[in-house]
Amino acid sequence: MNGIEEESMAPQTFLYGCVLESGKEVLFNPEDDEFEHQLDLRMACVDPSTADELHMVEVEGQDSEGQKIKAVLVSLKPSTLPSVCLGGFTITPPAVFRLKTGAGPIHISGQHLVMMDADQSFEVDDDDEEEEEEE
Amino acid sequence: MNGIEEESMAPQTFLYGCVLESGKEVLFNPEDDEFEHQLDLRMACVDPSTADELHMVEVEGQDSEGQKIKAVLVSLKPSTLPSVCLGGFTITPPAVFRLKTGAGPIHISGQHLVMMDADQSFEVDDDDEEEEEEE
Amino acid sequence: MNGIEEESMAPQTFLYGCVLESGKEVLFNPEDDEFEHQLDLRMACVDPSTADELHMVEVEGQDSEGQKIKAVLVSLKPSTLPSVCLGGFTITPPAVFRLKTGAGPIHISGQHLVMMDADQSFEVDDDDEEEEEEE
Amino acid sequence: MNGIEEESMAPQTFLYGCVLESGKEVLFNPEDDEFEHQLDLRMACVDPSTADELHMVEVEGQDSEGQKIKAVLVSLKPSTLPSVCLGGFTITPPAVFRLKTGAGPIHISGQHLVMMDADQSFEVDDDDEEEEEEE
Amino acid sequence: MNGIEEESMAPQTFLYGCVLESGKEVLFNPEDDEFEHQLDLRMACVDPSTADELHMVEVEGQDSEGQKIKAVLVSLKPSTLPSVCLGGFTITPPAVFRLKTGAGPIHISGQHLVMMDADQSFEVDDDDEEEEEEE
Repeated sequence: MNGIEEESMAPQTFLYGCVLESGKEVLFNPEDDEFEHQLDLRMACVDPSTADELHMVEVEGQDSEGQKIKAVLVSLKPSTLPSVCLGGFTITPPAVFRLKTGAGPIHISGQHLVMMDADQSFEVDDDDEEEEEEE
Repeated sequence: MNGIEEESMAPQTFLYGCVLESGKEVLFNPEDDEFEHQLDLRMACVDPSTADELHMVEVEGQDSEGQKIKAVLVSLKPSTLPSVCLGGFTITPPAVFRLKTGAGPIHISGQHLVMMDADQSFEVDDDDEEEEEEE
Repeated sequence: MNGIEEESMAPQTFLYGCVLESGKEVLFNPEDDEFEHQLDLRMACVDPSTADELHMVEVEGQDSEGQKIKAVLVSLKPSTLPSVCLGGFTITPPAVFRLKTGAGPIHISGQHLVMMDADQSFEVDDDDEEEEEEE
Repeated sequence: MNGIEEESMAPQTFLYGCVLESGKEVLFNPEDDEFEHQLDLRMACVDPSTADELHMVEVEGQDSEGQKIKAVLVSLKPSTLPSVCLGGFTITPPAVFRLKTGAGPIHISGQHLVMMDADQSFEVDDDDEEEEEEE
Repeated sequence: MNGIEEESMAPQTFLYGCVLESGKEVLFNPEDDEFEHQLDLRMACVDPSTADELHMVEVEGQDSEGQKIKAVLVSLKPSTLPSVCLGGFTITPPAVFRLKTGAGPIHISGQHLVMMDADQSFEVDDDDEEEEEEE
């Protein structure tokens, strides 16, 4: 059996990578509802085919008020800065990555962490709690 | 219900982003007094519209004596360094970000951590303590 | 006796380094099945013999669905960015590193962590091994 | 009341910033003997008034033998590298920062951590405990 | 009394710095056998006297098989990249740093961590155990 093992409690680490190009959004929103998912972004890089202009990557997520928020993740230009370390920028789903300027391609990579949901692991006998929140 | 869930003890991670422009300060001072708030800054980036001069970002916060202190967070120039990793620079509120030199825009992004106040989580039967400190 | 000591529970840290050149893949897949292995990548660097073109390093690993996935780890060019910090990019085996573009050499370095498998360390009633150590 | 609260056990995080100029040393040596102090350095940056030469910052502290030691913290040049992440370089007092070459100004920033001294927090009523271990 | 205090259990943090020049190796191998030693490397920097060529730093340590291994730590060139963050690259002794190319000087700095050996701290009444492992 590959992938996530059901009996695990500790976070498991998988490889994550995506390519951003003009007009192409990348969504991070795993559909699994038994586990908690998180991205730890590590690197953003250009490609030999990336035009020598400023490529600005935007991420859209949720702020602490539950509102949609856009933030600039990184700005790269092949002749000035072809790669930059993102230093473990933590993204919680749902999140969308897109190019705000530049046509890309820009490569984003890091780790996809999968962990048992904290509530579930300590309150296994109470399945209704999460559903109540959504009412 | 979105956003912060009242019953949570572990820190929750939200997206944070702001844009600094000449003459525009950005305040980080969440008004919620039941939770502890913290910023973990990850990236500072220029924009295609950022002029090719040195843009220096200042943060104003509190030192260990309780006095206001200003520190330089980052200096960016589009043609030399369009993005830099801030490596998890931790900011505790209240804090103010502003451009000390340059007209921007400069984008700052990272994580907004929200956690149960440490005192509250271990001393739930003593509501008056925090108010006493403010007298 | 050098190297890994069988009775250890805490992760042990060893040096890791590899060189990527055109047409030469580097596999990270330790064959030991009693321990868990992990790479924490720290640096990617060029060499004086590296041609002044963009060298893009690809890593191939496993995503959370158990599928093979390729991600771009770093893009380096000697005259623009001869070294970059990878910031602790965590790689779980099996993984393959290769140059997607450029002829290299590109040097990758970091730490090889070796730890007792998590499952084994929590299933003490199964092998008697742990109890013997305490006698 | 602002600043450090006496009853706290967990580390508290304050903003730290200093400016280095030719002939001006900056000492980090908080005089408080009830708490442990530490700097986690995050960023070093130039200023628009910084001359376009190499500015090398030296830190003087203590090595593991209790001897004074000097180490180079960072070298910045406005036209090449106006900012660099120091990645959480930990400085324990007493320490002195100074420019070894260049006239500055160079800005250093990070976090000043203040924590209860480890010995005090765990051995408030039992001074003999550690000595017993050595018998 | 300065330096390491015998009764300490938690890691203590000291300043580490060395200078690499052509033909001069730097060994990290503390002779103390009561404590565990580790380097957390933070920064690599050039000097105003460093020639404008590529200086490549090599570290020699031990891989997980107990074999000597060489890895490239960083490549710096004054006019392109005068400083780079090493991001906490962990080095366990014995290790040797040297310039593979370039005449330096290159400055390396970080933290020297000193901690009680894990085995000793939990098994104080059994001095023979470590010797038994070597039989």
